[in-house]
Amino acid sequence: MKNVLQYIEANRDRYLSELTELIAIPSISTNPENKKDIQRCAEWMSKHLTSIGMEHAEIFPTAGHPVVYADWLHAPGAPTVLIYGHYDVQPVDPIDLWTSPPFKATIRNGNLYARGSADDKGQVFIHLKSIEAFLKNTGKLPINIKMLLEGEEEIGSEHLDPFIREHKKRLKADLVMVSDTSMFARGVPSVCYGLRGLAYMQIDLIGPNKDLHSGSYGGSVHNPIQALSEIVASLHDKNGRVTIPGFYDDVRSLTKKERDAFKKLPWSDKKYAKELGVKALYGERGFTTLERLWARPTLECNGIWGGFTGEGAKTVLPSAASAKISMRLVPDQSADKVAKLFQKHIDRIAPNTVQVKARYLHGGEAALTPIDSPGVKAAVAALEKGFGKKPLYQREGGSIPIVVQFKRVLGLDTVLLGFGLPDENAHAPDEHIALENYFGGIRSVAHFYQALADL
Amino acid sequence: MKNVLQYIEANRDRYLSELTELIAIPSISTNPENKKDIQRCAEWMSKHLTSIGMEHAEIFPTAGHPVVYADWLHAPGAPTVLIYGHYDVQPVDPIDLWTSPPFKATIRNGNLYARGSADDKGQVFIHLKSIEAFLKNTGKLPINIKMLLEGEEEIGSEHLDPFIREHKKRLKADLVMVSDTSMFARGVPSVCYGLRGLAYMQIDLIGPNKDLHSGSYGGSVHNPIQALSEIVASLHDKNGRVTIPGFYDDVRSLTKKERDAFKKLPWSDKKYAKELGVKALYGERGFTTLERLWARPTLECNGIWGGFTGEGAKTVLPSAASAKISMRLVPDQSADKVAKLFQKHIDRIAPNTVQVKARYLHGGEAALTPIDSPGVKAAVAALEKGFGKKPLYQREGGSIPIVVQFKRVLGLDTVLLGFGLPDENAHAPDEHIALENYFGGIRSVAHFYQALADL
Repeated sequence: MKNVLQYIEANRDRYLSELTELIAIPSISTNPENKKDIQRCAEWMSKHLTSIGMEHAEIFPTAGHPVVYADWLHAPGAPTVLIYGHYDVQPVDPIDLWTSPPFKATIRNGNLYARGSADDKGQVFIHLKSIEAFLKNTGKLPINIKMLLEGEEEIGSEHLDPFIREHKKRLKADLVMVSDTSMFARGVPSVCYGLRGLAYMQIDLIGPNKDLHSGSYGGSVHNPIQALSEIVASLHDKNGRVTIPGFYDDVRSLTKKERDAFKKLPWSDKKYAKELGVKALYGERGFTTLERLWARPTLECNGIWGGFTGEGAKTVLPSAASAKISMRLVPDQSADKVAKLFQKHIDRIAPNTVQVKARYLHGGEAALTPIDSPGVKAAVAALEKGFGKKPLYQREGGSIPIVVQFKRVLGLDTVLLGFGLPDENAHAPDEHIALENYFGGIRSVAHFYQALADL
Repeated sequence: MKNVLQYIEANRDRYLSELTELIAIPSISTNPENKKDIQRCAEWMSKHLTSIGMEHAEIFPTAGHPVVYADWLHAPGAPTVLIYGHYDVQPVDPIDLWTSPPFKATIRNGNLYARGSADDKGQVFIHLKSIEAFLKNTGKLPINIKMLLEGEEEIGSEHLDPFIREHKKRLKADLVMVSDTSMFARGVPSVCYGLRGLAYMQIDLIGPNKDLHSGSYGGSVHNPIQALSEIVASLHDKNGRVTIPGFYDDVRSLTKKERDAFKKLPWSDKKYAKELGVKALYGERGFTTLERLWARPTLECNGIWGGFTGEGAKTVLPSAASAKISMRLVPDQSADKVAKLFQKHIDRIAPNTVQVKARYLHGGEAALTPIDSPGVKAAVAALEKGFGKKPLYQREGGSIPIVVQFKRVLGLDTVLLGFGLPDENAHAPDEHIALENYFGGIRSVAHFYQALADL
């Protein structure tokens, strides 16, 4: 391991210049005019994988952008890790707000600025450079690695799901590792071991069979906007709890260890509220903000519409009103079950003055890789060695659909080892990765591979 | 009077052919390409007023379409009535749905079909032909008449208000008569003696200072859509009453005579609900539907919007949400006062988790011409003679801004003597006026002029 770390240190400049070369390819997946760049980037990746010693590098065409695959499978008895990342990037508009050109990697204040530096080329490269350090030094890896890189992450990964289903056997592994997230804060290495799930609904109300004049008809029928507001308002009680019967039934409680771990994270409700511009936070009573964000299910109205929404005043009593409502789920809630509970509840509370229909648009389960599982233990040990300080545990309130797919299709848990930062501007101008995180990341994943082998 | 009625009877065919001529002018006020037709229609009107014996016929240009004025003021000691009407019409789209060409008056099933037949050329002509019958027979009118016809009613009467203010003295009268509404039902002549007022508000909520990801942030801040729904839902109690403190303070109660009069109108809640396609009606408990529509103030949400409103699912926790809310007012509520009560209430109930602002967009007072006032008494007597049956009393839930202006600027009450029908398709294809109402109307307003003189 010492040699590996020395190799990393000795090749710092090249490790940056190669990343600069990768970044220079404008692989914006959403722009049709960058289709050739996407292809060129996939080829660059495939070639580079081979050059560092990975095997069976192959570019798989899809109905969209290609998937790049490579593996190294010569560690019999050791675990197999499926490393997922993406080589496509977000668009660069508004280009005027970039301090340096987005596809010309530029170092300022200890950060490397460029589109894709953090999301996700830089983080993919952390793995590639760690793998290189092993293979060039020792001729082998401590574990088996399968590398899966897609080119459509920023546009919804439409063609990755069929690819995974088709190549189930090829992708067989013990664990998935994704480096596409952020550390909790600068100087605070952390491992993310859980994501929330989602059940996304739409409620449509119909009152009178046509838009009515609010003067001639106001006072005789139940206004669908009012009825919808009454329904939406009733979905939370005074303690900020969701009122759907059975909603909390399958929620796995936080362990004392987890609650204690969250408390160790540097956090200030006051600062958080100030950053968001609100005077007071809101949520389920009895839980801290991080607990509510990461380990409690929530219900949010994502959209509402009905009647006249233009400038000025139109005296309409509308025929219809609708809302989009999604629920974030935690283990062991089932998205389908929660969606059914929601629909049943809406049917029950719907007044007889309007017609109400709740539709289930889509959903996915929460994901949790227990903090005492081998993968998380290895990640924690690796981060501590890579960054020289004890990492903290975090979860994430959002969902990463691909993580749900890995679980659903391949039956695999995912460890999220992110080296970005919360202020990295992943989808905005001046995206950057901290150099200390880039090199700390390369060292950490080297330790991670070793730690997995040692378990 | 007998001669007058005989004259009307003797000239039925001409009274229809002249209306046909007027209707043939496509005076669609909203279409720039009909500007010349509007001018032509104003000139036709002015010429026709002179031809029937009215005096001082004049076309007043405005910044928009012209106002036509004429008068006959040779009945000293008798009351002066300001008759208001409009010669502009609605567009005719969708033209395919017309059974006969919209500007070619066509008689079918006892109705005259054409754009403007009921709204309002036909009803203006009812007055003109009644006036003609008096002047051609007797050389005089029993009362003084001032005729005010505008060409912008269908596009908001923007330039009528300054005209009224500028010509206050010219328009001085004892009473305004408007024939631009409908009878309660076919075969049920009625006089409309009250309109509701309006206070139109907009509520804007701001929560977090930008749109947030509902996964990463859901559970930590008060969702503005939820907060808005809570506010909107709280504006009615379980009895359908508006919860704004002081809202009902200035409401004038219905007299027993009025409640009894409403009960005489042919009405079925069941039929009304069926027509509107709702299973059950809704409103303030303790009042009949007609009482709620005409004599009780109401609060309606005219529009609501916030967050994602497109197809599919976007996991946004929006920064803002807004609603348009209007209140229909009755005597003796003041629109400005109610708007202030609303704003005060919103300020009081707004949670500290979001910023809430209620704006007053515009408003106007309710109008009521008491049923025992001379104007209404004369109208009732006239309708009974014109149609051969006792008319009923009704009010209207909407507002007619010009009626509010006549009260505000000229200090005049308005009597609404409408000869349209609820199913006349005023703004739709196959607009029509019943021939029995056209001729019944001509007879009735003749009786009305006489009744006013006899009071």
